[in-house]
Amino acid sequence: MQKPNQSAQFQNHALFCIGTGRMGLALQKEYQEQLRLVQQEIGFSHIRGHGLFCDDMAIYQCRKDENGAEHTEYNFTYLDRVMDSYQENGLRPFLELGFMPKKMARGAQTIFYWQGNTTPPADYDKWAALIRATIMHLIGRYGREEVAAWPVEVWNEPNLPGFWENADQQEYLRLYDVSARAVKDVLPEMRVGGPAVCGGGSCMPWIRAFLEHCRDTGAPLDFVTRHIYMGQQPSHEGRYLYQEMCDPAYSIHEAEETRELIDSFPEFRGMELHITEFNTSYNPFCPTHDTVYNAALIAGMLARLGDTCASYSYWTFGDVFEEQGVPARPFHGGFGLVANGLIKKPTYWTFRFFKDMQGELLHRDENCVAVRAKDGSLRVIAWNTKAEEKECDLSLPAEDGEWTAVFRTVDENHANPLKLWHDLGEPASLTAEQLSLLRAAAVPGTESRILTAEKNTLNLHLSIGKCAVRAVCLTKRTTETERGYRYPGIGLPDKEDKQ
Amino acid sequence: MQKPNQSAQFQNHALFCIGTGRMGLALQKEYQEQLRLVQQEIGFSHIRGHGLFCDDMAIYQCRKDENGAEHTEYNFTYLDRVMDSYQENGLRPFLELGFMPKKMARGAQTIFYWQGNTTPPADYDKWAALIRATIMHLIGRYGREEVAAWPVEVWNEPNLPGFWENADQQEYLRLYDVSARAVKDVLPEMRVGGPAVCGGGSCMPWIRAFLEHCRDTGAPLDFVTRHIYMGQQPSHEGRYLYQEMCDPAYSIHEAEETRELIDSFPEFRGMELHITEFNTSYNPFCPTHDTVYNAALIAGMLARLGDTCASYSYWTFGDVFEEQGVPARPFHGGFGLVANGLIKKPTYWTFRFFKDMQGELLHRDENCVAVRAKDGSLRVIAWNTKAEEKECDLSLPAEDGEWTAVFRTVDENHANPLKLWHDLGEPASLTAEQLSLLRAAAVPGTESRILTAEKNTLNLHLSIGKCAVRAVCLTKRTTETERGYRYPGIGLPDKEDKQ
Amino acid sequence: MQKPNQSAQFQNHALFCIGTGRMGLALQKEYQEQLRLVQQEIGFSHIRGHGLFCDDMAIYQCRKDENGAEHTEYNFTYLDRVMDSYQENGLRPFLELGFMPKKMARGAQTIFYWQGNTTPPADYDKWAALIRATIMHLIGRYGREEVAAWPVEVWNEPNLPGFWENADQQEYLRLYDVSARAVKDVLPEMRVGGPAVCGGGSCMPWIRAFLEHCRDTGAPLDFVTRHIYMGQQPSHEGRYLYQEMCDPAYSIHEAEETRELIDSFPEFRGMELHITEFNTSYNPFCPTHDTVYNAALIAGMLARLGDTCASYSYWTFGDVFEEQGVPARPFHGGFGLVANGLIKKPTYWTFRFFKDMQGELLHRDENCVAVRAKDGSLRVIAWNTKAEEKECDLSLPAEDGEWTAVFRTVDENHANPLKLWHDLGEPASLTAEQLSLLRAAAVPGTESRILTAEKNTLNLHLSIGKCAVRAVCLTKRTTETERGYRYPGIGLPDKEDKQ
Amino acid sequence: MQKPNQSAQFQNHALFCIGTGRMGLALQKEYQEQLRLVQQEIGFSHIRGHGLFCDDMAIYQCRKDENGAEHTEYNFTYLDRVMDSYQENGLRPFLELGFMPKKMARGAQTIFYWQGNTTPPADYDKWAALIRATIMHLIGRYGREEVAAWPVEVWNEPNLPGFWENADQQEYLRLYDVSARAVKDVLPEMRVGGPAVCGGGSCMPWIRAFLEHCRDTGAPLDFVTRHIYMGQQPSHEGRYLYQEMCDPAYSIHEAEETRELIDSFPEFRGMELHITEFNTSYNPFCPTHDTVYNAALIAGMLARLGDTCASYSYWTFGDVFEEQGVPARPFHGGFGLVANGLIKKPTYWTFRFFKDMQGELLHRDENCVAVRAKDGSLRVIAWNTKAEEKECDLSLPAEDGEWTAVFRTVDENHANPLKLWHDLGEPASLTAEQLSLLRAAAVPGTESRILTAEKNTLNLHLSIGKCAVRAVCLTKRTTETERGYRYPGIGLPDKEDKQ
Repeated sequence: MQKPNQSAQFQNHALFCIGTGRMGLALQKEYQEQLRLVQQEIGFSHIRGHGLFCDDMAIYQCRKDENGAEHTEYNFTYLDRVMDSYQENGLRPFLELGFMPKKMARGAQTIFYWQGNTTPPADYDKWAALIRATIMHLIGRYGREEVAAWPVEVWNEPNLPGFWENADQQEYLRLYDVSARAVKDVLPEMRVGGPAVCGGGSCMPWIRAFLEHCRDTGAPLDFVTRHIYMGQQPSHEGRYLYQEMCDPAYSIHEAEETRELIDSFPEFRGMELHITEFNTSYNPFCPTHDTVYNAALIAGMLARLGDTCASYSYWTFGDVFEEQGVPARPFHGGFGLVANGLIKKPTYWTFRFFKDMQGELLHRDENCVAVRAKDGSLRVIAWNTKAEEKECDLSLPAEDGEWTAVFRTVDENHANPLKLWHDLGEPASLTAEQLSLLRAAAVPGTESRILTAEKNTLNLHLSIGKCAVRAVCLTKRTTETERGYRYPGIGLPDKEDKQ
Repeated sequence: MQKPNQSAQFQNHALFCIGTGRMGLALQKEYQEQLRLVQQEIGFSHIRGHGLFCDDMAIYQCRKDENGAEHTEYNFTYLDRVMDSYQENGLRPFLELGFMPKKMARGAQTIFYWQGNTTPPADYDKWAALIRATIMHLIGRYGREEVAAWPVEVWNEPNLPGFWENADQQEYLRLYDVSARAVKDVLPEMRVGGPAVCGGGSCMPWIRAFLEHCRDTGAPLDFVTRHIYMGQQPSHEGRYLYQEMCDPAYSIHEAEETRELIDSFPEFRGMELHITEFNTSYNPFCPTHDTVYNAALIAGMLARLGDTCASYSYWTFGDVFEEQGVPARPFHGGFGLVANGLIKKPTYWTFRFFKDMQGELLHRDENCVAVRAKDGSLRVIAWNTKAEEKECDLSLPAEDGEWTAVFRTVDENHANPLKLWHDLGEPASLTAEQLSLLRAAAVPGTESRILTAEKNTLNLHLSIGKCAVRAVCLTKRTTETERGYRYPGIGLPDKEDKQ
Repeated sequence: MQKPNQSAQFQNHALFCIGTGRMGLALQKEYQEQLRLVQQEIGFSHIRGHGLFCDDMAIYQCRKDENGAEHTEYNFTYLDRVMDSYQENGLRPFLELGFMPKKMARGAQTIFYWQGNTTPPADYDKWAALIRATIMHLIGRYGREEVAAWPVEVWNEPNLPGFWENADQQEYLRLYDVSARAVKDVLPEMRVGGPAVCGGGSCMPWIRAFLEHCRDTGAPLDFVTRHIYMGQQPSHEGRYLYQEMCDPAYSIHEAEETRELIDSFPEFRGMELHITEFNTSYNPFCPTHDTVYNAALIAGMLARLGDTCASYSYWTFGDVFEEQGVPARPFHGGFGLVANGLIKKPTYWTFRFFKDMQGELLHRDENCVAVRAKDGSLRVIAWNTKAEEKECDLSLPAEDGEWTAVFRTVDENHANPLKLWHDLGEPASLTAEQLSLLRAAAVPGTESRILTAEKNTLNLHLSIGKCAVRAVCLTKRTTETERGYRYPGIGLPDKEDKQ
Repeated sequence: MQKPNQSAQFQNHALFCIGTGRMGLALQKEYQEQLRLVQQEIGFSHIRGHGLFCDDMAIYQCRKDENGAEHTEYNFTYLDRVMDSYQENGLRPFLELGFMPKKMARGAQTIFYWQGNTTPPADYDKWAALIRATIMHLIGRYGREEVAAWPVEVWNEPNLPGFWENADQQEYLRLYDVSARAVKDVLPEMRVGGPAVCGGGSCMPWIRAFLEHCRDTGAPLDFVTRHIYMGQQPSHEGRYLYQEMCDPAYSIHEAEETRELIDSFPEFRGMELHITEFNTSYNPFCPTHDTVYNAALIAGMLARLGDTCASYSYWTFGDVFEEQGVPARPFHGGFGLVANGLIKKPTYWTFRFFKDMQGELLHRDENCVAVRAKDGSLRVIAWNTKAEEKECDLSLPAEDGEWTAVFRTVDENHANPLKLWHDLGEPASLTAEQLSLLRAAAVPGTESRILTAEKNTLNLHLSIGKCAVRAVCLTKRTTETERGYRYPGIGLPDKEDKQ
């Protein structure tokens, strides 16, 4: 066992931000129900996704009158509805500026089933005006102080030609400059960042070029953003994609390298790094997302990413998502923590468990992390990304006496509705009874045990099944037994039966 | 294995009626929340409890004016509130006429912490007038047709001196006659019954005397009622009571004997028998009630009681209950299916499982019952009231091919919040986190398996842990796999890891 | 005063059906909230709108695999979600088959901001297959009996070239035949109708041709459908349309003529006529819709249309509606009974008042209708579509004695949030306080009076303000005053003040 | 018109505290629903009522075991439930220590239908132990910081022999000392006060004696409390009480005198004075409570009491109240802002209107108060406690230009469900339709007008009907009219009709 790094706080920013399908989908009821479910039990602080300026949000309006004169108007009906819903759910947007309104776009290239235009503005002044008007409106509705706390990111994955025409770096830097300045013109306290690149070969050179640009031109920059996905070589079958996942250590290393790159710029040393998207696969029809294996991989990520990153936004909270079309099955490998029908997937629980991991770091290795919370309880999460069972032995500092250990388990037979759905025949439409059973199957196993600490040490032995995640909550046990109540023997049949 | 009795319907009246603490408690919010929980998932048809005419319901009002003249008024404010709440929950009352309003009572004897007066009316005319006025009012509010469907029982356990002064049989028969006639005077279609006796030595003689009385005097009688409790010799400690429970077979035999007694009267042959209370212990501080053992015993009862009884009302749905005072702990051995704090107890699931047992009886023995439902699914419940694990093998008639089996398990480690509460130190007041964990622990284990029927037979093997209850739902499996989706191997790490 | 037509029932089908924006919008939360509001208080039986087969519902899927082979799949994810929501709201769909999925369309013509394709199928067999698959799926989910009660209409307004390419009548008749037969192939009990034409010059010839076609070819036909709008010559300004409205008598006459046309066919005599859309203006940016004048005009329609029509579906329940783009103001002249922000418009109350108009018709003239309900209460609605106040005197048959009259008034100062919104400056985004005030202003005035009937007659005098609607509920008054309670003088200051 | 006192803040503490029926009633569902209604729209900060230690709360438990040994236990099951509900509603308790648990009481005297024991403790040590245990428990559940913010008052109206045996002042001072010290022993930051006397002859001498005692003995004292009721000579009829009310000026003077008395003690100068109960009548069957006259009287009180008092707790928020028995009619003169059935009474609106009166005091006279809120809006409340209509003319400082005035009116025909209920025949049980009408009638009239300020002055003319209350909200009007939208003429019939 490794020696605990005793006095440090566990850097846990797992709940800072969560991803979402395009903003227009936030108008949907199922989206809102999935979001409420996630917020009630997990409670992220921010939410980030595409589509703020896409046409289904209907913000940018340009009409000609009888005389042919052009009138630009901004319509914030839907934006208000979405932002109100976020506020009601305790969320602030992590605003992503994009994509391009059709009537403002230079070109016709689009991405996704929902056809987000991915070309530069035909007129950068109109783009800047749109940004300014939007932020002005938000200030009017939510107040300057509130809006100032919303981070702003410029565009999405411009290093991919699908997301930004020709992956044109110079054009992106221009977009960045105009956008960042438009934001600061209206609300200087608002924090702006980029370049929102996805991983892969061009990622690090792009970040480097972006930082050099900001350093050299003095473009406003408050934080750096990038994405991390763990999927390796893909194969396709029908609308599905299959791929192996790299080890969490590999992805964590990507974050560290980015951290080092930023810190290598004296001007940007220590600047916040936000992973504005991460997940195992980057494809919304990758069946791995629905599995307990996914839950274990993400646990490995959450255990370490906070060391280098200010946030890491899991892509996405729910399965109301249409990038590759409308899913035809409740389980289809979508990104969501929650499947359509409000069924919690295994990875939901990884986040739920990490919610409680606030406090002093007592122990951490490649399969386990342990903290002592403010209230004195000890919290442990262990995971296993391999196909064989693992054993884990921990010695935790603890006051002598009895402790209650509550174990919550996500594995093949617990919190694994995918298996039940498969056993039911992979139905496309769920009956009420099937839905009810799937929800019932989507909860961790819960067990308890009384442990005893001696010599200020609590020894905890944990078996972790293949691809499983387990959480343990340990609290000092004090008994409040009422006079006359004796638990032992309650619920056992009478003696004759026992003999 | 026993040969299934193939063509008969399973006589399952488990959901006809449920017991409740005194009616005045129905004003409470926690009571209503527990009731709603039970009704949403189980859905009983009727509800029966004490206290309709007790003073906290404030129906009978008698005031003197300035001149000393007495004014009788009826105040239905609280009655409306309670009856409205029952209707909102899909429930009809199984009205129990009692106890005596203090201002109408002949004597001062009371029962329970909440002091229900258990003496005859000082003036039987006033009692009859109260009954008539109450039913008239109910007709005005809920309609004649609706109220006519509410069964009426006269008093509670008059064969016990605590419940009816001196257990005076002649006085009870007078009360019965007056009450039954008052009901019929207002609404002849309303169905009236008695004598609501509890088990024990005087039970059968009382029923016999009651039937003779009705036969001889022509007193209105629509059904016969009695209670069945399984508790044997008790011992006390503090406010708690401990007792061994008889075998379900013994209690079922009590019902059969009563059935035979009724049928021995030619005039009453086939008349409905309602067990208006049943449970293991008759004491609201008997820890057994909270256990999985209780769930198994009740399963044994529900499997057979319908053969002889039109209903059997589990005493009670929830733990808002004050007969022996206000409970000081969430788990204290109360009667409820639900513990205070909205925590489902093991026996809750016995009823939930039996809800689905509608259809053709395929098999029944002392540990198991199996039916074929209208929709073609097969439903099995198995239970074990002993301290050793049991095995159960069933061969069910089934179309050849794949079947999905979903197993739901209540045992020491599943749906057993009592154990967790004990491990937590038996806290009197629950923190939010404790409450959340207890609710999470209060659900059955859910597992699924694909089985294959051959030669029109599905073989099912079940292990049943000590004091456990298991339910199995079997449905014919047809696959709707989407093109390109392949379940096997999803969620397993890549090959290098596996080797 | 006219003599009441005493023994007839008032033919009131106002609640049979309600219109809705395109089906894809039913996924939205605000849509669902507006619908729930309407259903809770009004409670329509059916709902009809466009877009069942539009691409945002994503039902029709056609993908090529690696080898170029085409795979047709149907995706009912969104359809289930919408239909489930209707069922939860107590609604059945009045299914409109249309518009054309892009991948199935012969041409590229579209209508509306949301681009519904309005061309015939490239392959009628695929269209028929789509219909059959959809109905098969609905049967599987909701049951044969339930789905058989859903009326089906073929396409929308094919007599307009915008809605059906070239308004090609022969092509429509082909579409009708194929569609109706596809429906009947799967579920012969399902009722099918057409031709769903809008009013104007081509309306009656189209209906005649359609009926002749059905008569001559034996095409299945269960009912006839058309639309009625009251708007006259329009003028435009910005995105708004202004127009005068015809008198209700004119529109009612249109319905009567259609009735006569149908009845002139011996084969179709008495066949149901459904007005599957009606309203004042046919434009969703016509400010009249939001006014009390609109409420009065619709009252005039609801008072008479039931004489000739089996239903008349107000277009539409709410303002989540995008045909001419996304509204930028809460009040913009949309069709809805409810404005965005859940603000009830005046016409909402017209329907709410007509909900209670069930029973024997006591009186009807051009400004007033009166019925006696089953429970003995008298219900009156009076309206005024003119710019001057009107007086209305009614003598209603009534038992002698006191009656309670409750008056509910919709006029310039009551239930008229539009005026308040204008006075507030016509804000685009509402603050919480503004929204709260607007909802508070969106309720009728409620007043009561005690009237006395003599000689079996109750004389009722009503003033009806300009463009106002008033409803009166009259119930026989019996007093239940408690001893000692005296109302007169309560709430008046002491005598010194009064003198 | 008086000259405005321009620079001062309006001292408005109307929402600091609200009264409630005995704590045990807080377990009821209807109580909680009324409370939630009040809190959602008004939102008081604290709640105060009797009965913390009454037997229905079941806190103090004393049982003998088999050997006759006495065991004292504290049962906080119900206390937790009540306090949790307060916290959920955003309320802190203003704890009143009382009445006496029967098993701890020296005597048998009780008060009210629910029999609160009003005698001193048989053993002051047990009383102190009870207080300490209760506060210890609350700290454990809600945290030290939270509980420290809960004010504590010792007993209720000890200057009345009904509430405190013999109105024994010396005994009260002893009770006060023991109680206050018990509180401070556990949580010194908790604030304690008394003597909670009711008005009338003995009130001021009691307060003087109490202050002298505290000064002389050094007993802990953080604030002074008393009650104010406006009812004069009563007359009785049945269970009802009728009485004239004094002018608000008289009651306000009572508060001022108390203020002066406190300030006359150098040690207590400026110490907070809390009116822990006030209302018009002190009787829960005084019909005045339900009237608009009551609303006007209370407006007069809220306009001035904040000048001298830190709080004034209206007695009570709702009509779940049993001091004189269970009400038999929804309107019976109960104290509540809300009648049973969740019907808002006129006085509800007085508090709702005063909620918005935060800001700079612009004007105040005997019928009117006006403030400028932080957001720049002007808020006016005017009331009339006389039987003749009044006129009120105000000149308010305001920026030149258009202002939107929104008027909300409570008078005989608005927000006056009592009148409708009377017209309906004073029904004891409400049908669903009656309840719906009563709720619809229980809202203020809402009207708007556009006013114009000139020379920095806005002239406002208000007619105030007899016994009416009116609130006006004035906001600067800026128009956001969309291009093409013209309000004038919308909703008027076409020209032919108009001529």
